[in-house]
Amino acid sequence: MSNQILIPKLAIVGVGLIGGSLALALKAAGVVGEVVGIGRGLANLEKALELGVVDRITQDPAEGVADADLVLLATPVLTLTEMASRVLPHMKPGAVLTDGGSVKGSVARAIEPLVPEGVHFVPGHPIAGTEKSGAEAAFATLYHRRRCILTPTAQTDPEALRLVRRVWETAGCEVVEMDVEKHDRILGAISHLPHMVAYSLVNAVSSYDRYEENILEYSAGGFRDFTRIASSDPTMWRDIALTNRDALLEMIERFELSLAELKEDIRGEKKDRLYDFFLRSKQSRDAIL
Amino acid sequence: MSNQILIPKLAIVGVGLIGGSLALALKAAGVVGEVVGIGRGLANLEKALELGVVDRITQDPAEGVADADLVLLATPVLTLTEMASRVLPHMKPGAVLTDGGSVKGSVARAIEPLVPEGVHFVPGHPIAGTEKSGAEAAFATLYHRRRCILTPTAQTDPEALRLVRRVWETAGCEVVEMDVEKHDRILGAISHLPHMVAYSLVNAVSSYDRYEENILEYSAGGFRDFTRIASSDPTMWRDIALTNRDALLEMIERFELSLAELKEDIRGEKKDRLYDFFLRSKQSRDAIL
Repeated sequence: MSNQILIPKLAIVGVGLIGGSLALALKAAGVVGEVVGIGRGLANLEKALELGVVDRITQDPAEGVADADLVLLATPVLTLTEMASRVLPHMKPGAVLTDGGSVKGSVARAIEPLVPEGVHFVPGHPIAGTEKSGAEAAFATLYHRRRCILTPTAQTDPEALRLVRRVWETAGCEVVEMDVEKHDRILGAISHLPHMVAYSLVNAVSSYDRYEENILEYSAGGFRDFTRIASSDPTMWRDIALTNRDALLEMIERFELSLAELKEDIRGEKKDRLYDFFLRSKQSRDAIL
Repeated sequence: MSNQILIPKLAIVGVGLIGGSLALALKAAGVVGEVVGIGRGLANLEKALELGVVDRITQDPAEGVADADLVLLATPVLTLTEMASRVLPHMKPGAVLTDGGSVKGSVARAIEPLVPEGVHFVPGHPIAGTEKSGAEAAFATLYHRRRCILTPTAQTDPEALRLVRRVWETAGCEVVEMDVEKHDRILGAISHLPHMVAYSLVNAVSSYDRYEENILEYSAGGFRDFTRIASSDPTMWRDIALTNRDALLEMIERFELSLAELKEDIRGEKKDRLYDFFLRSKQSRDAIL
């Protein structure tokens, strides 16, 4: 692992699981000089300082990013544009802004017009996370062997893109580049759709009122595992549903067709078609084990 | 734990995870005399004998059940009626037949007319299982703190019902009694529907052909956990889909309405309704953690 300083000064806006873990990973690799933690909540910032996630804290974004070489926005998706508008005018020439938002098209479209001459923006998304949040949840190995998708646009500076790629690779990620629309459609399929399905399933089952008792009490391990993602943060998922609306609607409709096919085969008692439907699914699933 | 013999002779038809684990649990509790393992596959039976899951094995159901006090059918749902027809004529007066099938209405309706005078049938369903199968998968504590649902009908002998209840309680289950229709609707909701949804989801995502690569390769832990149940045995789930058809169709339609509500709120960008939908689901889910 290199001990050359890659980022003399790093600013993390939103020192939670995503931002805090990148700071810890880069510190562990010895490639970062000073890390500034920027956020609204003082308690979380003080905890981040105490835990050594960051070296300095401030609640003032303008001051915090003033001499940063790289700024990571790691706040909820719907706040990214506003945060970008607050930090961009204060970034020094040659500095790079990147983000970790799980939707990229709407974010890139909103932020790019705000980027001043001489400052660069690279939209990104590390595919990692746990159900925990806050600075206390951060750990240096969160990104080991996880994918990070960078979504350069026609405007993206190649040098800035290379820097952000090296940063995520240093943190342990396998970095993949693709266009923003492809990112949003793929994440819509493998992440956003399953969350929508899990939330809908829990609501459908828990509102089943044919019997007086709460039938969820009969659920065994399978149901609990299957619906764990329905425990995710409602605000985060509301924001994702709104910002990745078109790709998500496309995937929900594909899923509805798949379920409708299964339903018709159950209704028609199509023994062979049912077996084939379940087998195909099992084979696809087992291939990614 | 009592050391009184509850079942002098127990016959298990299908010595897999379900049947084998009951045998081991009753042996551990010291309440069973001899256990006879009955099945088609000699290799599995010999393994069961070698592991001490059963004391004697036979491939002849008629001979195996001849002097059994309790016979458990633990074969796939669609085979239960045929197995019942093969063992019932050979059971001794006063003996009790029970089963562990995950669908109860169609099974009870098919088996009850076959029960000879003096022999008793108690339909049952222990809600337990892992993704493994075969005698080697069996273990004595599978049923600890799991629910077992017994579904007596108008024909069920109260004394036989009491015996089967004691057997499952001895194995560690909390035993609940309910009518067959209620069982099938509840299991349709909390078990069968989630499996149909998982299979449909994997098929919808894996058939997404907008891009050349297999987008499942981008899936992270959430998708893998969420779709684990789509790796279940296609034959077993085909049989469940066919035998619990009406309850399952009802639940699929409830789920479709729930998803359609969510889809319309995404389409209409109903911020507050989306938040409420996700929050309600999270609260129901967290209540069963």
